[in-house]
Amino acid sequence: MDIKRIEGGVTAAKGFKAACTAAGIKYKDRDDMAMIFSGEPCECAGAFTRNKVKAACVKWDRNLVSAGKKLHAVVINSGIANACTGEEGYVSCRMTAEAVEGSLNVPPDSVAVASTGVIGMQLPVEKLVQGVKDMSGKLSESRASGTAASKAIMTTDTENKEAAVRFTVGGKEVTIGGMCKGSGMIHPDMCTMLAFLTTDAAIERELLQKAVSGVINETFNMITVDGDTSTNDTFMLLSNGLAGNERISSENEDFERFKEALFMVCRELARRMAADGEGATKLFEAKVVNARSKEDARTLAKAVVGSNLSKAAIFGCDANFGRFLCAMGYSGADFAEEDVELFFESEAGKLMVFDHGVPLNFDEEKAVKIMKADEVTVLIDMNEGTEEATAWGCDLTYDYVKINADYRT
Amino acid sequence: MDIKRIEGGVTAAKGFKAACTAAGIKYKDRDDMAMIFSGEPCECAGAFTRNKVKAACVKWDRNLVSAGKKLHAVVINSGIANACTGEEGYVSCRMTAEAVEGSLNVPPDSVAVASTGVIGMQLPVEKLVQGVKDMSGKLSESRASGTAASKAIMTTDTENKEAAVRFTVGGKEVTIGGMCKGSGMIHPDMCTMLAFLTTDAAIERELLQKAVSGVINETFNMITVDGDTSTNDTFMLLSNGLAGNERISSENEDFERFKEALFMVCRELARRMAADGEGATKLFEAKVVNARSKEDARTLAKAVVGSNLSKAAIFGCDANFGRFLCAMGYSGADFAEEDVELFFESEAGKLMVFDHGVPLNFDEEKAVKIMKADEVTVLIDMNEGTEEATAWGCDLTYDYVKINADYRT
Repeated sequence: MDIKRIEGGVTAAKGFKAACTAAGIKYKDRDDMAMIFSGEPCECAGAFTRNKVKAACVKWDRNLVSAGKKLHAVVINSGIANACTGEEGYVSCRMTAEAVEGSLNVPPDSVAVASTGVIGMQLPVEKLVQGVKDMSGKLSESRASGTAASKAIMTTDTENKEAAVRFTVGGKEVTIGGMCKGSGMIHPDMCTMLAFLTTDAAIERELLQKAVSGVINETFNMITVDGDTSTNDTFMLLSNGLAGNERISSENEDFERFKEALFMVCRELARRMAADGEGATKLFEAKVVNARSKEDARTLAKAVVGSNLSKAAIFGCDANFGRFLCAMGYSGADFAEEDVELFFESEAGKLMVFDHGVPLNFDEEKAVKIMKADEVTVLIDMNEGTEEATAWGCDLTYDYVKINADYRT
Repeated sequence: MDIKRIEGGVTAAKGFKAACTAAGIKYKDRDDMAMIFSGEPCECAGAFTRNKVKAACVKWDRNLVSAGKKLHAVVINSGIANACTGEEGYVSCRMTAEAVEGSLNVPPDSVAVASTGVIGMQLPVEKLVQGVKDMSGKLSESRASGTAASKAIMTTDTENKEAAVRFTVGGKEVTIGGMCKGSGMIHPDMCTMLAFLTTDAAIERELLQKAVSGVINETFNMITVDGDTSTNDTFMLLSNGLAGNERISSENEDFERFKEALFMVCRELARRMAADGEGATKLFEAKVVNARSKEDARTLAKAVVGSNLSKAAIFGCDANFGRFLCAMGYSGADFAEEDVELFFESEAGKLMVFDHGVPLNFDEEKAVKIMKADEVTVLIDMNEGTEEATAWGCDLTYDYVKINADYRT
């Protein structure tokens, strides 16, 4: 009955294959294209950037998802974002999809495309097409092929990110797995950089979308690296139904279990994405409890992990808690400073630093010890209600500046 | 008839004195308190942080300004912010004002107080009181005393900031001068860190406030350093009427000239504050023209200078213009990517990089040359309307991180 973490990513669920290749789009010496493929057509749910400037591939995918198309494949490149590329950029998407049609005999409108990388540069279409051909001959259900794909989509990520869980629905074993890449340009107000999940569960498309929308709000939409929101942010979940479970078609217990499993995968991927923010040395978590409303709790938690000053203090292991209160104050959420309690928490201990509007004379040495951990939590008790929310980010470091001052070169 | 820039700051206008002292509140070896004083009572207009968490001194000053009190003095310290300090913090304000009463025989409710520095720490009141006593004996109308005061209020600023202008109203010479300090925690959505202006113009209090509110929206509210909005942001303009002009009591030509002069002082102070943002190596200006509405123009310009990724690109002299479009896209303003033209501009030249939705193959060397200047402008032509706005910020550098990772130590 339990939901069990398992090894693997996009190929963990039945019937999903993956491949990758070094197409030479930007990088010379590594894989920079990946493909996910299911011979069985898939229902698809998605969430895309709300940035007014959308990459051509985001427009392409949104059209497929909103038309309720059944998908067979997702093709990703990690060299060029294909954003701010006008009509020519959209043509690149179509030609990529047609290349999949040519190699694997599935309709172009069953092929999603995704990009990450430099904005304002055209994709070399002939390399994309060649890459699709190469990958089509290498598709495999092996765990290694999923892992290789998760590496091929990385940009400034320092490690690949995969997660998967297994559980049962009506006696049938169901799997959800996925991969993501993040690092820069991750912002709470929308789906994060690139995340692709696959499942063999049989589930109605409307319910799949409902599960995605709900879970994303508590996971990918609760992380921030630099407050910038990408033109390319894409989350897609494909389900091919090969688990053979009775199709989930109402919001029953099976649906709840599916959502819980999806939450586990998304939470793990989102936390790892935050911890691997550009230049980050640690995961920075803000947990707000006893807030007046869910919305307030979310707003407060996100403001704290999103503040440059808070992030720099976390990097410096400086228990400058006033910066958290300051960020809470400009967040737009309603609260009284006099109600607030603040704690630092990590595997090294827990320390109260602010009590109902009054700063405490806390032990600085203990604070530093707590903050030196790889995962640091600021626990904020609002004492005004019952709602809570958690947001994830990372520290602001010299390396963040270094990475972004000369990204293109 | 012209408005003339002159040397000086808060003591440029008739009847304003200043002093400063090393009170030892935080720094050991420099002045950290300043006072502005006018024997003639002053009308006062102000703008304060909209942060929900307000420093005790902000609460104190807002009460004075909203009650329409006539002011004689402003006392500032640059060691401790007096924010998140509960009831005790407010008592510190009153005791500071009472110290001025004791020394200079003016009512406590004619004394404004301001603080900048660490949040969440109590002020050493006895040092403040002693500081007031010291300064009361040193008050001077000299330009040097104004300059010394502008240095005493600095925290992470690398240079002091003063500006003043002189013009005539009905044949009488009128002066507006001021000083400010900024650096970290400067955010567009409100009055910036600390700015104190003085004028000898005779003007109704309501009109003084109207002028301040209008001018601030185009100057101090258009700069950003790190997106964080302080608990202490304070702008105050004191007018003692000693110029002897016919009192400005309607929105006539005199009022317009006064506003224009005020704009000149505020624009100069705001630009210098942006250019001296924590760790900054250059001024980063975004000028949006031909936008659909004033609000859109302001929103777009502020999003561009506020983006960490844009700021890092400006630091690295990397013409990664896609980041500007990305920031515009998530700003919330309405526009079509296909209408936009983008240019880099500085004293070294001007270069178009994006033309109506299409990236140009521009000369990278020329771009770098332009971006190496001390002041770099991104000119954004929306081609959708007639409104424009300019915002100012700075680049994001290693030093920003360094300054903020160990601020308290």
